[in-house]
Amino acid sequence: MQYRRLGRSGLQVSELSLGSWVTYHNQVDTKSAVEMLAAARDAGVNFFDNAEVYAQGASERVMGEAFKQLKWARESYVVSTKFFWGLQREGSTVNLQNTLNRKYLMQAIDGSLQRLQLDFVDLVYCHRPDPLTPIEETVRAMSDMITQGKALYWGTSEWSAADIRAAWEIAERHHLHKPVMEQPQYHLFHRKRVEQEYARLYEDLGLGLTTWSPLASGLLTGKYRQGIPEGSRGSLESMSWLREQLQHPQRNAAVAELEAIAAELGGSVAQLAIAWVNRNPRVSTVILGASRMSQLQDNLAALAMTPKLSPEVLERIDALTLPLAQ
Amino acid sequence: MQYRRLGRSGLQVSELSLGSWVTYHNQVDTKSAVEMLAAARDAGVNFFDNAEVYAQGASERVMGEAFKQLKWARESYVVSTKFFWGLQREGSTVNLQNTLNRKYLMQAIDGSLQRLQLDFVDLVYCHRPDPLTPIEETVRAMSDMITQGKALYWGTSEWSAADIRAAWEIAERHHLHKPVMEQPQYHLFHRKRVEQEYARLYEDLGLGLTTWSPLASGLLTGKYRQGIPEGSRGSLESMSWLREQLQHPQRNAAVAELEAIAAELGGSVAQLAIAWVNRNPRVSTVILGASRMSQLQDNLAALAMTPKLSPEVLERIDALTLPLAQ
Amino acid sequence: MQYRRLGRSGLQVSELSLGSWVTYHNQVDTKSAVEMLAAARDAGVNFFDNAEVYAQGASERVMGEAFKQLKWARESYVVSTKFFWGLQREGSTVNLQNTLNRKYLMQAIDGSLQRLQLDFVDLVYCHRPDPLTPIEETVRAMSDMITQGKALYWGTSEWSAADIRAAWEIAERHHLHKPVMEQPQYHLFHRKRVEQEYARLYEDLGLGLTTWSPLASGLLTGKYRQGIPEGSRGSLESMSWLREQLQHPQRNAAVAELEAIAAELGGSVAQLAIAWVNRNPRVSTVILGASRMSQLQDNLAALAMTPKLSPEVLERIDALTLPLAQ
Amino acid sequence: MQYRRLGRSGLQVSELSLGSWVTYHNQVDTKSAVEMLAAARDAGVNFFDNAEVYAQGASERVMGEAFKQLKWARESYVVSTKFFWGLQREGSTVNLQNTLNRKYLMQAIDGSLQRLQLDFVDLVYCHRPDPLTPIEETVRAMSDMITQGKALYWGTSEWSAADIRAAWEIAERHHLHKPVMEQPQYHLFHRKRVEQEYARLYEDLGLGLTTWSPLASGLLTGKYRQGIPEGSRGSLESMSWLREQLQHPQRNAAVAELEAIAAELGGSVAQLAIAWVNRNPRVSTVILGASRMSQLQDNLAALAMTPKLSPEVLERIDALTLPLAQ
Repeated sequence: MQYRRLGRSGLQVSELSLGSWVTYHNQVDTKSAVEMLAAARDAGVNFFDNAEVYAQGASERVMGEAFKQLKWARESYVVSTKFFWGLQREGSTVNLQNTLNRKYLMQAIDGSLQRLQLDFVDLVYCHRPDPLTPIEETVRAMSDMITQGKALYWGTSEWSAADIRAAWEIAERHHLHKPVMEQPQYHLFHRKRVEQEYARLYEDLGLGLTTWSPLASGLLTGKYRQGIPEGSRGSLESMSWLREQLQHPQRNAAVAELEAIAAELGGSVAQLAIAWVNRNPRVSTVILGASRMSQLQDNLAALAMTPKLSPEVLERIDALTLPLAQ
Repeated sequence: MQYRRLGRSGLQVSELSLGSWVTYHNQVDTKSAVEMLAAARDAGVNFFDNAEVYAQGASERVMGEAFKQLKWARESYVVSTKFFWGLQREGSTVNLQNTLNRKYLMQAIDGSLQRLQLDFVDLVYCHRPDPLTPIEETVRAMSDMITQGKALYWGTSEWSAADIRAAWEIAERHHLHKPVMEQPQYHLFHRKRVEQEYARLYEDLGLGLTTWSPLASGLLTGKYRQGIPEGSRGSLESMSWLREQLQHPQRNAAVAELEAIAAELGGSVAQLAIAWVNRNPRVSTVILGASRMSQLQDNLAALAMTPKLSPEVLERIDALTLPLAQ
Repeated sequence: MQYRRLGRSGLQVSELSLGSWVTYHNQVDTKSAVEMLAAARDAGVNFFDNAEVYAQGASERVMGEAFKQLKWARESYVVSTKFFWGLQREGSTVNLQNTLNRKYLMQAIDGSLQRLQLDFVDLVYCHRPDPLTPIEETVRAMSDMITQGKALYWGTSEWSAADIRAAWEIAERHHLHKPVMEQPQYHLFHRKRVEQEYARLYEDLGLGLTTWSPLASGLLTGKYRQGIPEGSRGSLESMSWLREQLQHPQRNAAVAELEAIAAELGGSVAQLAIAWVNRNPRVSTVILGASRMSQLQDNLAALAMTPKLSPEVLERIDALTLPLAQ
Repeated sequence: MQYRRLGRSGLQVSELSLGSWVTYHNQVDTKSAVEMLAAARDAGVNFFDNAEVYAQGASERVMGEAFKQLKWARESYVVSTKFFWGLQREGSTVNLQNTLNRKYLMQAIDGSLQRLQLDFVDLVYCHRPDPLTPIEETVRAMSDMITQGKALYWGTSEWSAADIRAAWEIAERHHLHKPVMEQPQYHLFHRKRVEQEYARLYEDLGLGLTTWSPLASGLLTGKYRQGIPEGSRGSLESMSWLREQLQHPQRNAAVAELEAIAAELGGSVAQLAIAWVNRNPRVSTVILGASRMSQLQDNLAALAMTPKLSPEVLERIDALTLPLAQ
């Protein structure tokens, strides 16, 4: 496992990292979480991704409980959370959900720290853009979390390049803590934002990327080529919005051809897909999901494939996927 | 009930809200407060207005006790307080009353939070301008309240446009928290400040308005057309300064004609008056007062009248009231 | 008693105020302090001046104990302290004495608050200039005291106009709390700094003045005209450096002629001298000292003489004192 | 002992000071530390240097225990620590070692204060430059330590002039606490950085120097002229990297000739070497190491030699050492 700077910051994250989205609480209980966190750490993973909205706070609770059992030195790992949707609660939900206003953010960080049983998170994200809150209000609240010691670095997830730049410039002008990373979706079929829209931000702002969904929610494992298998992510009720794209015919056809390339290189198509994200030097870390230990181990093994992605192999992959990518 | 952004901030307030001025402690005890707060919230109200000076701190005590009994999630409602007059206490009153100096403000917020039994208020206002304190001193103290986590947003009440702009520019230049809202008197007979004096502030500063006295202290209910009724606000000793304008002959005559228009639209003149304030998109929320549940329900029902205020109806209303308005 | 703004700040101080220099601990014990503080407050005094160095911390202890017994509402009075000389302690005295460096100041304020038994002082002064510490270092430490809530306003004592302006400009540029007042010596024989050197600071910076030694350490009471009386300030061992100027022949001769003017106006020469300082509108407050109740009452009675200082009387006073003044 | 300002700051340090590098824990236990600290203080030393990395935290523990026994007034001494290498701990060491990122620094200061049993250190240093962390991230973290009251002044150790200037300018632009001192190696055979590279920083930034290794790790005592003596620093396993330069033939030959000059002036070559560093007015303090009381006393006695370093003597010294110096 290698470590990369989170953008131009001084923090280093493992090139592969472990997220709790979808899996925690739903498919992974505390006992499995402890086992998989320990296995990931043994493999060199030092970044563990989370969010308030994952399983409505339960994902933070499971991870917090697991950390408590694992007793790692707090300095030795990096943990994140993210805010935007809020938790489903009684009472009027205005100001509590789908917002990045000061009222929500200042209360949200306290809730997450409590669920995670931590004094601070390393990374805190604005989980989506909020067009109804001025960027300055959000920047001040995120920067205040750092000043108060509740977080160390802040960033965004799925923001436009224009909004990221606005946040950075506002923070610079008012001498506040600037955003250092963005968490975008990035995989063989979803490339334009990372490769085109953000292009100038890497040099200009030193933006780092912690990318999600390297396997396109499982499409790039090949397992949806014959429909939605029982027990897969696509079969979860909460993931029903994903089903159509998981069964995209041309993409599944391309996956079949990628499998052949992966086999040539001595691995699975999933490993090929992860290695492909990892080979982009703008990516600080590829966040992996895993509902079972074997899946985690398979995914971590993608590291072996990265050096095999020669220019020629990359060209063949592009020919198959670029026309189908957004 | 609809929600509107408080000016350009990310906070959303219900278009109608509930204030405690005059009524709390004097006409409304904790039991009634609990009932009316619950009813308002059931109707969608999420903002409850208060001030240090209302009933000399007792209004904050009643509301604080009511919140405690209601056990609402703190994130689900917005509460305010305001500072300027100070409380009547023993000892020299210089620096304690009619001031916005640092000494008074830093102690006032602590007193209000104690009376309200809260860790923070959402909104904190400079209740009046103080020509003897430099605006920069006041801006620093208000901004410090936010930095210390004792308030989330700050604003002014009954300040001139020039002073609001000065406060905003000073905060911007020194990288402090800027004022986001003003609480002006605004009703059919008191319109110039909101409609003319503040005109440029909405776009330039993103100023939001939380308006008070939609019924002109009851004049716009029609109840003062035949003199001061027993038990009305106008009959309170503390409100004696209001009596002359409550009995203003031409305005009361206009109210009689507004009653006819209201009847045409299927409501009371009070509902017409509230709806008229609410129809102004610069108004973030119309603060209602109520000493009885029935009054509260009547006032909340004004929402039904807002869509009926067609351009033609508004013209008729203007013809009656504009010549009599200040 | 009238109240005046402390320079351009929003704080108001009584035109006459009470200091503890020389008298506390040495001539005034806690019991007398309680009586004189109560009498001063009854007369309208709201500002009580102190310093770390006065009686080596004992002056703060006496005043703190007196405040505790008096149980005044903290909001109703203004109290100060000042730092520069440090306390005489064991160990190396470098960095502890005759300095305004960060190390000394950050520890000094904590010590003073402990001795005064207060959570904050209203005013905190740099008691003298320190040519060995950069003004920026001192400005940051003084501003930090305010940000931390340990003081409300800061200023200087016996600084040059150039240094005061430098401190103000540094604070403005770095968005820190700016100095608002200076405590200079100011009396009939010591006028040039207040009247000439500081002339531009009043308008440019809004500087306020809390002046000390209105009676020139007693010279302007006339009591030193026949030598040093037993039990007077001039007879104290610690004040021996004052003796020469207390016996200044021409000044004592001028005092004799001032006594005649004072008698014409129906008061003492001490009252005339205090009234003369008080008549300068640049002076926010005249700090009085008193070792006995009768002295305090006599000095407070100077208020009656201020309106009697007609232009003609002031001209006669100038003719006698200006040639002898520095 | 004389005191010098730490650069342009208001803090004054003794011209000779005492460091714990190499010696503490390894050669000096708490009992000896107490004795030597007391002797140094009796001789006028007020600055005691430490670092997280010295003996892996044990050096801070020994000094903290010694301070506790000595019961000096906290205001009367200056203590430092430094961060960069981190402590050797279980778990992934990325972000914990060889870094100046925010995550490491914010945790490191808390650990040092705990080991030293202090509420704050006076001086905190970035022990080495970290090319992987943006200088702005480090400046913000160091400045935050001061704002939080955990340190009073911050600086660097072994940074390039360009990096020091960058840190200073970033702090100035963002209104943060600026670095005030650098801790470079400086002795007769290591002069270029202090005398050439930093030349402009003294006037431009007011940089102060706390220099280390005045005796070139013992080379300038003459004791390595005949090889590595038993029990010397050069014989320690952890110092094996030093052995080659300790036995440098031409330098040891020059030391022999310096001994003759020192004898002429009535002292040892070690005293001559310390006096030579001390005679540079850009040096705020010369940090001495000592594993035994006699060594400490010998080194402190170098003060007597400083005034004997006439221009002629300095020329003779330069002739011997400058050609061999880096």
